[in-house]
Amino acid sequence: MADDGYRQPAFDAQVLQRILDGRYAAVRDLVRDNLVEHAQVLDDADMMPREEFRERVREIVGLIAATGQAGYGFPEKYGGGGDIGASVAAFETLGFGDLSVLVKVGVQFGLFGGAVLQLGTESHHDAYLEDLISGRVLGCFAMTETGHGSDVQSLETTATFDAATDEFVLHTPTESGRKDYIGNAARHAELAVVFAQLEIAEESHGVHAFVVPIRRDGQPAPGVTISDCGDKLGLQGVDNGRLSFDRVRVPRTALLNRFADVTAAGRYESEIENSNRRFFTMLGTLIQGRVCVGGAGLSAAKVALAIAIRYADTRRQFRTAEDQPEQLLLDYGIHQRRLLPLLARTYVLHCAQEVVAGRLHDVFTDGADERTRRALESRAAGTKALATWHATWTIQECREACGGAGYLSVNRFAALKADTDVFTTFEGDNHVLLQLVAKGLLTDYSSDFSDLDQLGMVRFVAGLAVDGVLERLNAHKLLERVRDLLPGGDEWDQEAGLLDSNYQLAMLEFRESHSVAGVARRLKRGIDLGMEPGEVFSRVQDHVIFAARAHVERLVLMAAVEKFQALPDGAEKVAFGLMVDLHALTEIERDRAWFMEHGRLTTQRSKAISREVNDLCRKVRPLAVDLVAAFGVPDAMLRAEILGEQAS
Amino acid sequence: MADDGYRQPAFDAQVLQRILDGRYAAVRDLVRDNLVEHAQVLDDADMMPREEFRERVREIVGLIAATGQAGYGFPEKYGGGGDIGASVAAFETLGFGDLSVLVKVGVQFGLFGGAVLQLGTESHHDAYLEDLISGRVLGCFAMTETGHGSDVQSLETTATFDAATDEFVLHTPTESGRKDYIGNAARHAELAVVFAQLEIAEESHGVHAFVVPIRRDGQPAPGVTISDCGDKLGLQGVDNGRLSFDRVRVPRTALLNRFADVTAAGRYESEIENSNRRFFTMLGTLIQGRVCVGGAGLSAAKVALAIAIRYADTRRQFRTAEDQPEQLLLDYGIHQRRLLPLLARTYVLHCAQEVVAGRLHDVFTDGADERTRRALESRAAGTKALATWHATWTIQECREACGGAGYLSVNRFAALKADTDVFTTFEGDNHVLLQLVAKGLLTDYSSDFSDLDQLGMVRFVAGLAVDGVLERLNAHKLLERVRDLLPGGDEWDQEAGLLDSNYQLAMLEFRESHSVAGVARRLKRGIDLGMEPGEVFSRVQDHVIFAARAHVERLVLMAAVEKFQALPDGAEKVAFGLMVDLHALTEIERDRAWFMEHGRLTTQRSKAISREVNDLCRKVRPLAVDLVAAFGVPDAMLRAEILGEQAS
Repeated sequence: MADDGYRQPAFDAQVLQRILDGRYAAVRDLVRDNLVEHAQVLDDADMMPREEFRERVREIVGLIAATGQAGYGFPEKYGGGGDIGASVAAFETLGFGDLSVLVKVGVQFGLFGGAVLQLGTESHHDAYLEDLISGRVLGCFAMTETGHGSDVQSLETTATFDAATDEFVLHTPTESGRKDYIGNAARHAELAVVFAQLEIAEESHGVHAFVVPIRRDGQPAPGVTISDCGDKLGLQGVDNGRLSFDRVRVPRTALLNRFADVTAAGRYESEIENSNRRFFTMLGTLIQGRVCVGGAGLSAAKVALAIAIRYADTRRQFRTAEDQPEQLLLDYGIHQRRLLPLLARTYVLHCAQEVVAGRLHDVFTDGADERTRRALESRAAGTKALATWHATWTIQECREACGGAGYLSVNRFAALKADTDVFTTFEGDNHVLLQLVAKGLLTDYSSDFSDLDQLGMVRFVAGLAVDGVLERLNAHKLLERVRDLLPGGDEWDQEAGLLDSNYQLAMLEFRESHSVAGVARRLKRGIDLGMEPGEVFSRVQDHVIFAARAHVERLVLMAAVEKFQALPDGAEKVAFGLMVDLHALTEIERDRAWFMEHGRLTTQRSKAISREVNDLCRKVRPLAVDLVAAFGVPDAMLRAEILGEQAS
Repeated sequence: MADDGYRQPAFDAQVLQRILDGRYAAVRDLVRDNLVEHAQVLDDADMMPREEFRERVREIVGLIAATGQAGYGFPEKYGGGGDIGASVAAFETLGFGDLSVLVKVGVQFGLFGGAVLQLGTESHHDAYLEDLISGRVLGCFAMTETGHGSDVQSLETTATFDAATDEFVLHTPTESGRKDYIGNAARHAELAVVFAQLEIAEESHGVHAFVVPIRRDGQPAPGVTISDCGDKLGLQGVDNGRLSFDRVRVPRTALLNRFADVTAAGRYESEIENSNRRFFTMLGTLIQGRVCVGGAGLSAAKVALAIAIRYADTRRQFRTAEDQPEQLLLDYGIHQRRLLPLLARTYVLHCAQEVVAGRLHDVFTDGADERTRRALESRAAGTKALATWHATWTIQECREACGGAGYLSVNRFAALKADTDVFTTFEGDNHVLLQLVAKGLLTDYSSDFSDLDQLGMVRFVAGLAVDGVLERLNAHKLLERVRDLLPGGDEWDQEAGLLDSNYQLAMLEFRESHSVAGVARRLKRGIDLGMEPGEVFSRVQDHVIFAARAHVERLVLMAAVEKFQALPDGAEKVAFGLMVDLHALTEIERDRAWFMEHGRLTTQRSKAISREVNDLCRKVRPLAVDLVAAFGVPDAMLRAEILGEQAS
């Protein structure tokens, strides 16, 4: 390696951990302690039959509730902590442990509790919050149906107002209208927040949420049919079930009425006139779940990396010279290439997650205008998609990097793989979430989000927005801005140093602007040619997803660059900077074909980027064990037997 | 779509299935019938506790043995079928069903039976084959140790000859020398083929195989310690265990002595003088396992595609127009992009697998020179790597494409994911296998394979072979050849039609030649600069893997093109051709950055390839359900509950 002034940083993993832990270090440490105290659950997950393990998980959720750790996000008045940021930090950290526990906590306190808190009003809060925060009453979140998951505006369950008795009648009209995959429903929930089409005098007002008792003394309530989803790929400790309602009556006050209400006379009242907008405003209050899932996915990836990198630093295989010991796996170039960019991306996504969690806290604590809320929802959606795909990929690569040992349950990957697998499709399918991101980009978050689907997007773009989109994303202005930041004038992308973060960001920003504008043009052209909107959308859809992803990747890198710039000088900053550079160049390398196709990368420079990625991997290699140590995964959560063995 | 003369083929899925089934259609149908008869095992895998399921799998393996289906590869004299190709076809088809059954069959008849057959001589055949083919005696294959998996020449278990008693003494000297992950060992095997360092009078002769009784009447034999690997990520029906030997004595005749023997006087005799070469000759006889695992991985991918594509053709979500029904998932462009190239690659890999299985049959039936054997070993290794990675990726994508429904065990992905996961690292870690491929390329299969590892490769290249490698791979000659085949003279790569298979193959051939030559040059340069061989190798390793993969990808495409060309004209050929084109262009698209970097793709043509891939996806879409039907996966093996439901 040429002497480029680089000196290997001698950094302190604990100092770096405090940097990563950020504002809620104390909360994270409390959760770490609780995880270690209940570490036995990792074994129980392997050993216990399903029903027994479900009870065990319920028990732990109760114990966790008793520590106060699960209630951070609720008002202090009801025994909560009154700190949304703390509740996200606690949930993320819980992701180091058994993920059935995590998801059951998420269902109870995030989905069920969050719906009561956000969609209900004081009478609901008074009635339910204290009991649900303490874990005395368990509930579930009954939105998804067998027939509709992504398209929740098309749910079939009905809630018909009966003025004669002042009640709503909840009903499942068809097989495809049964509630499905509902966590906590098969065994433990007494209450459900049920999403249903509100109907008054044969007029539909769209989807609303109702608190419905579904179980009494362990038995289904009258009119409620409950069945069990049975074995799943993972998360066996969560009792997912199905709910059907046969004309189940609840009082009028069961409507969670923060955004809309029905009077005793049967008049429908809401401050939000447009029914779609009302629905998406309601949904928007529930985005904490998405933020939490993304963060938990990253925690699972951290566990996998901690095991695989520590293993690779002790496991030896093959000699490279007769008189040498066998070589450590992590000294192989291909092993570095497989694991270290994933480590870097985990650091960078951690920063992006921190920004999203911080904004969530601010918006829900201090309030915000609608555009800010929409932008946050979009960012939460995109970050969740990238973080959970990253988790799936990272855990897979780490398993393979540990070979046969990685296949044994005792080494943790089995549970990590199985339990996280659904993260990419629950709390919003990742592809659908990226479409939501694209929608926000194309409409500049100014739309009332009246149509989440492709029809709405196509129609919107066809109608009016293209010029606005193009102007807003004017690549010309971007290039001017970049010229000011980077040397090289019009040749900025050929002259700037590869490790200049302005260059890295400019590349991702160019890709974003160019691809979003391209999507707008293509949609417009299709409509102008008179094609069916559905056909237009289907043809452009891969481009739509690409553009959304390009946008989120830029936000992700920017979050890490800003965190880096704010760090005090020192060895920790140098190490952190290596992570940012390695990630940024790996991302440009991954998509280098696109940059070449669009004139922003010469073939020579493209090859230089690949060489730089290899150089960075070699620089990171001696730091890798400390870099995973800084994630602060408790040793008891690694469990991995392979780490306890000396290399042969 | 422009009228390019394309007419949608009205093909018969059953006719196409016969084309795919090939020579062994009758064998495959027999196995299909057996699978359907025992379809209950798919439920049992979910419902039964581990120990009970292990016994259930053992029972089914016995029933399978009774049909003769497991014995195709053994001599008729002992009750076998005398047809190696049939045995591979049977095993591949078994991959549609429960994979614990598959792997247990593989351990018993492939690994254990194969070792006795290939490494033993008549006395061993007489003693064991009939009982093992019938399933009366179960055995295991004890090669891997805790400390050594990929580097099997460094195994620590010893077999010391004791002339006084005419016995070998098997011994496990260290903790890392215990046999590990051994299928059939924890519960059922009575015999083990144990690989150990043969020592006579303190002289080591390298690794040899011995038949060792490890269990009598269900109890470990004296001196043998057996433990259980416990829960695994998947394959719970296979009893993987650990074996340690404390000076266990076996008669001299326990040595499987086809390639080397020890006389009563303690003289070591072998027709192969070089000990490394002898070892790799022994290993080379066992490659059927690798061929089988690759084929089984493809079968699992076929099951996943059959479920996901049929589901996508019935499941609807979101309207694209007010007056239309909701749109089928498979009509979404992104859904086509996610699934259909995987379908195409499965077709193409099927053809590559057919070639490898055919050559295996020929080489092991008729014999072959050493170079041919080495080339087959290399091809089997490479095809296994690509097929098993493809399986992992395909099953993951199919699971996500089925959303929450895909996460339920009843819909089959849970088992497919968990059970196939280890395919990428057992029977040879895929990265190590690709290094083996690279070794063969660099040495033109003329090496005695005396060093499987990187040290040997570096040393070899440093010493003498670079000029030979470069001459052999002369890109100039390749380009001349291509010019003759394709229009456009020196501009062949810019002028040829994208759907011309000569163009597609020339691109993959160029990539292969160029990258192999590049590896040779880089290794040579590193050595010339005086770097440590290990350091040189580590730096070039990603390039080594890339070159090996490029080679195998070319072979894979060529197998499919040749199969296509040999088909009679008709609708089936047209449909098959779409698969080959879609795969070839997807592969070029995936690596388009490399082709641009190396001057073989303009940015305009690169974009045209992406458009063509999208066009091909739209052409394949209406055929997709029939194309998966042609895999011939019995409906009972799909199990998937989601396919039984009407779209909402």
